[in-house]
Amino acid sequence: MRKVQYEFPLSDFTSEADFKRIKEFSKDKETPFLIVDLSKVEKMYDELVKNMPFVKIYYAMKANPLDEVISSLRNKGSSFDAASVYEIDQLLRLGVWPERISYGNTIKKEKDIAYAYKKGIRLFATDSESDLNKIARNAPGSRVFFRLLTESDGADWPLSRKFGAHPDMIYELILQANEMGLEPYGLSFHVGSQQRDIGQWDNAISKCKYLFEAVSLQGIQLKMINLGGGFPAKYLSPANELETYAHEILRFIKEDFGDNHPEIIIEPGRSLTADAGVIVTEVIMISKKAKMNQYKWVYLDIGKFGGLIETLDECIKYPVYSESRGYEEEVILAGPTCDSMDILYENHKYAFPESLRENERLYIFTTGAYTQSYSSVAFNGLPALKAYVI
Amino acid sequence: MRKVQYEFPLSDFTSEADFKRIKEFSKDKETPFLIVDLSKVEKMYDELVKNMPFVKIYYAMKANPLDEVISSLRNKGSSFDAASVYEIDQLLRLGVWPERISYGNTIKKEKDIAYAYKKGIRLFATDSESDLNKIARNAPGSRVFFRLLTESDGADWPLSRKFGAHPDMIYELILQANEMGLEPYGLSFHVGSQQRDIGQWDNAISKCKYLFEAVSLQGIQLKMINLGGGFPAKYLSPANELETYAHEILRFIKEDFGDNHPEIIIEPGRSLTADAGVIVTEVIMISKKAKMNQYKWVYLDIGKFGGLIETLDECIKYPVYSESRGYEEEVILAGPTCDSMDILYENHKYAFPESLRENERLYIFTTGAYTQSYSSVAFNGLPALKAYVI
Repeated sequence: MRKVQYEFPLSDFTSEADFKRIKEFSKDKETPFLIVDLSKVEKMYDELVKNMPFVKIYYAMKANPLDEVISSLRNKGSSFDAASVYEIDQLLRLGVWPERISYGNTIKKEKDIAYAYKKGIRLFATDSESDLNKIARNAPGSRVFFRLLTESDGADWPLSRKFGAHPDMIYELILQANEMGLEPYGLSFHVGSQQRDIGQWDNAISKCKYLFEAVSLQGIQLKMINLGGGFPAKYLSPANELETYAHEILRFIKEDFGDNHPEIIIEPGRSLTADAGVIVTEVIMISKKAKMNQYKWVYLDIGKFGGLIETLDECIKYPVYSESRGYEEEVILAGPTCDSMDILYENHKYAFPESLRENERLYIFTTGAYTQSYSSVAFNGLPALKAYVI
Repeated sequence: MRKVQYEFPLSDFTSEADFKRIKEFSKDKETPFLIVDLSKVEKMYDELVKNMPFVKIYYAMKANPLDEVISSLRNKGSSFDAASVYEIDQLLRLGVWPERISYGNTIKKEKDIAYAYKKGIRLFATDSESDLNKIARNAPGSRVFFRLLTESDGADWPLSRKFGAHPDMIYELILQANEMGLEPYGLSFHVGSQQRDIGQWDNAISKCKYLFEAVSLQGIQLKMINLGGGFPAKYLSPANELETYAHEILRFIKEDFGDNHPEIIIEPGRSLTADAGVIVTEVIMISKKAKMNQYKWVYLDIGKFGGLIETLDECIKYPVYSESRGYEEEVILAGPTCDSMDILYENHKYAFPESLRENERLYIFTTGAYTQSYSSVAFNGLPALKAYVI
């Protein structure tokens, strides 16, 4: 096998100055931990606004619910997509007005809808008759948007059929909402997280067009399309530039709706926060299972249950950086717990310098989304992932 | 399709009196939560002792690290298998003597070994040269046992190759340990959790026999075999009775080692605690995606990230009980979060009465192991799973 020098495109993920700052900040702290760079979140927000001036942004806070991230986006003028009453409470505590909050989970307890309504929330997602009835009973007069079931081919973290309903059923729900005194406000869909096939938006927007027209024949004018999320973050798998997404999506909208298109909402989570996070971890152990084995096992002090759950089925491939140098060598990456499922990457082989050593720190980039809040509360006795905001 | 009355073998999982007690205890508490019945843990411990009088029990506390469970097993005379220094600290805080603690994780930081040694721990698992060196440097004179890589066909929650090393490498490690002034004490293996093929123990015990003899030719007498865990809990998939396991395993040991067999250790986790737990959950929503869909979706207020992570790939099939009655109907079961991966069972169809309704409570049995401590710290804003001990 030809030997190749270890190379890592560090500048794709951080500037030299930023990396120095990360190292300086983290040097006396015990691993593992996540560092979230607020300025990067704000920069991504500005980029979104610049590239998609035609949208209203509802930050999907489940991606990263740190107070500092919320407050910073609140100051930028973002609205928020909340998944639970706990998230709504957090937003209100941080001074976000209820007018800027959408209760985006279609699975809601009756009492939670009542609570949200009492707190001033007037925008709800729905996708079933049951949920619609609960909204009508507990949040009279509110705006509702209806989630369409979509396919999610081409997404790294694909969507199941868990959310949304077929257009025919949505049509019925829109009429029912109208009759029940709710305001049928718009449609939503989600093409899947880290969606690389831009054409998926085209399909979904066409379905919206069809429904807009169908219900307008019944005298109902929908006013909004919620494009959901799915915009890319910088993992190892290449994705299109935000500019390309923005350009194409606007083209799809104009094709279907012309210049006078409905209000457009997006719910970015991952794309606003993932690139702003770096997890600092330490190599606990490097070993082989047998002398003749081709691959070494490299065990880190963070794993699937400590915040990297999106490595399930190796869906999300995080960039992992070593400061060592020399010839590269492919390894299996695993986590620290006694659970044998706690392997990060075995099929996709990560390469590190042969000189990689135990106790060395590794830097896992693009970990600002769906990490800290997912981590286990106490698995194997390990505490949940620490997070620092800089 | 022929209609069939809903039937659930409740008495397989609880007595009528116990179920009444669970309902009484839980009626004014907000779902979801876990109830752990200590008397059942104690009963399972007694059963193990009765059926396997030839073993020393090291409870794998990662399965359920609640203080009350630990204390109760401490009083019963159990020893403990700890996965981290955090678990060791918890054991010491609860008055478990260090002589009764095994540091069973083969992936250990150098400083954690030093810490454990300082606290009096003298029994360590290992499976690599790197880890062995760390133990020799930081825990001189300690007993070490060596983990063999085994296959785990037949297990519901199968093991990967993450832990253990091939016998040839273990042979080398044993000689090295001896030279480094450690006490090569024994061998360990793990056949996979919820292992239904008893023959897997036979294979592994034979490998132990081979190694005992190989190293005795070098003047080293190993004294112990650690059979790990893998004993069954009462999930939906049928398993053999504990008595059968005990009988067969003892037979395998005697076949290889005769009556004068080495000390035998087991590390039960799941089999001691799973059956003692019931999760009480509530149906949030029942819906269809299209009028013609065959299956309804039933959304619970607990899901994959709230404590039921072992439903991944539908590995573990928990018994889920409804108190409604009538004709049964197959459904898809999903969790409450906005994550589309948060589906519990879609391929294996769970049946409930057609009369199942929203707000109804369901009882998920056999949830005392690998639930609460696995649950996410704050995903979707939801708090980690609450646990009550009765």
